[in-house]
Amino acid sequence: MNKISLKQAAQLLLSKDKYLILCHRYPDGDTIGSAFSLCRALRSIGKKANVMCADIIPSKYSYIYEDLEGESFRIENVIAVDVADAKLLGPSVEKEYGKRVMLCIDHHGSNTGYAENLLLDSTAAAAGEIIWRLIRQLGVTPDIKMGEAVYTAISTDTGCFRYSNTTSQTFRLASELLELGVDTVPINKLMFETKSKARIEIERGIYKNLEYWFGGKVAVISLTDEMIRAAGAGEGDLENIAAMSIKIEGVKVGITFRQCDGGFKVSVRSLPGISACDICKEFGGGGHVVAAGCTIPGDLDMAMVEMQRVLEKHLAENFI
Amino acid sequence: MNKISLKQAAQLLLSKDKYLILCHRYPDGDTIGSAFSLCRALRSIGKKANVMCADIIPSKYSYIYEDLEGESFRIENVIAVDVADAKLLGPSVEKEYGKRVMLCIDHHGSNTGYAENLLLDSTAAAAGEIIWRLIRQLGVTPDIKMGEAVYTAISTDTGCFRYSNTTSQTFRLASELLELGVDTVPINKLMFETKSKARIEIERGIYKNLEYWFGGKVAVISLTDEMIRAAGAGEGDLENIAAMSIKIEGVKVGITFRQCDGGFKVSVRSLPGISACDICKEFGGGGHVVAAGCTIPGDLDMAMVEMQRVLEKHLAENFI
Repeated sequence: MNKISLKQAAQLLLSKDKYLILCHRYPDGDTIGSAFSLCRALRSIGKKANVMCADIIPSKYSYIYEDLEGESFRIENVIAVDVADAKLLGPSVEKEYGKRVMLCIDHHGSNTGYAENLLLDSTAAAAGEIIWRLIRQLGVTPDIKMGEAVYTAISTDTGCFRYSNTTSQTFRLASELLELGVDTVPINKLMFETKSKARIEIERGIYKNLEYWFGGKVAVISLTDEMIRAAGAGEGDLENIAAMSIKIEGVKVGITFRQCDGGFKVSVRSLPGISACDICKEFGGGGHVVAAGCTIPGDLDMAMVEMQRVLEKHLAENFI
Repeated sequence: MNKISLKQAAQLLLSKDKYLILCHRYPDGDTIGSAFSLCRALRSIGKKANVMCADIIPSKYSYIYEDLEGESFRIENVIAVDVADAKLLGPSVEKEYGKRVMLCIDHHGSNTGYAENLLLDSTAAAAGEIIWRLIRQLGVTPDIKMGEAVYTAISTDTGCFRYSNTTSQTFRLASELLELGVDTVPINKLMFETKSKARIEIERGIYKNLEYWFGGKVAVISLTDEMIRAAGAGEGDLENIAAMSIKIEGVKVGITFRQCDGGFKVSVRSLPGISACDICKEFGGGGHVVAAGCTIPGDLDMAMVEMQRVLEKHLAENFI
């Protein structure tokens, strides 16, 4: 694996042709936005390029690619964007292309170096930030569609500029995209302000069963198969549900019980000072300090009693 | 009233002293952030300055001002920030200072021109954007606390860079604030990710009474005095409640009924293609195309029936 510079990456792309650009599975705004903006840029300078993803791209991203058609050509060079590990391509795509990625463009410090050439900037908030610089380096004058795709990449990976990966560079790029004429409002609305009716039903149910334990220091929500079925909710409607509990003022630990085969999958979120990971370890689970998970067998009442017992100990040990 | 330039405003501030800086009532992040960053800047060049607001400043903004102490001096010059109309100062403050505002710094195109001098930029996303330029023009090297206050102003007035008032200039300013060293993450957490327990109770109630009309094209929520009382909610816990209804997928019009003396204050939000303003005009109200308000006397059932009748007409006229 060679680590290469932006200039080298641009030279490489200019010197070759017939590109397949790979996204990671469970595609998000960054991998999709990065892939399609690069695809447009390469096509704009006469190259052949297509995008591939192991999973279906969620329809809310359709404005990024709906005017593009797949091109027919024999693939000569494979590019991966925002893919830190060949495994993240998904089994079938990994099997076919995992060992022949000519160039990987990524912002994950954890990148495994599976590609022949790696353009990595771990200070970039999103792969889309690097793609934008690469487009410029290719000598391409970016158009609105490339801008919309890159805006989607950076805004979704930063939670609309709220997360700690947002840098002054991210904001400068956003400024440039607005100057180019990108209309960010409909994108923001779609990405951050729209909730499906099924999601609303799920939230309605969660609000109904929200409980506080230990004088409001712990917030507890639960999600049963019946709630999901009644709401007609899919996985997309359940994103970030576990984050809801810890957003409540005064809450130090947020617990989310989600029904699974024979018991409950439990997500634990905590504020600094108490380890969600240690709590989950007591049930054979694990994770990060402020976000961890475990599984507790049995019915909800039993699972809750067991969790209360463990929490009591951890809250006392931490004087919380 | 004189419209003055940034340079003239800075000259004015440099030539005078003993300032009282007024916020608007129901204070938000922009008026608070603008007032305190200007207060710090004026003090840093040896001027006397204090901030006043007719209402208590919500405690979540305390990081902006908690290290500042009120100064004791005889007020000579009054400044208003982010205050479009003297009425918005609140009755008592308006009575005392409304007619003697020496300088108003504002970004509302609707500013009534009540001040002796007006520094207005209606393209600024927030008054905080203008304040930042003014601080520079005063020759002040801004410190982190001024930066935090201005970041609060611009991020809250743009919904964390999501609303259409966000410009390339807003993003450039945010970029500059990060370069200055402002840590935006805890501010974002406090402003956009924390909900009081009272707010959670209000949302619980709203989810409980959420209704869809016209096959899901209209979402309706209601907020009674009893709900507010039971939740122990203050005005700060009710911010942006009206926006909840229009975030639901497929909803073209969102209606929020809030109980008031003798009836209901109604907020109407709409997607482009249908005018919230026209709907509210039928009840003697008004506002913007996509966000308007009116008052309907009587009880909730009556108010709802009347609103349904008006909506039926408007939805039909617009083929929605």
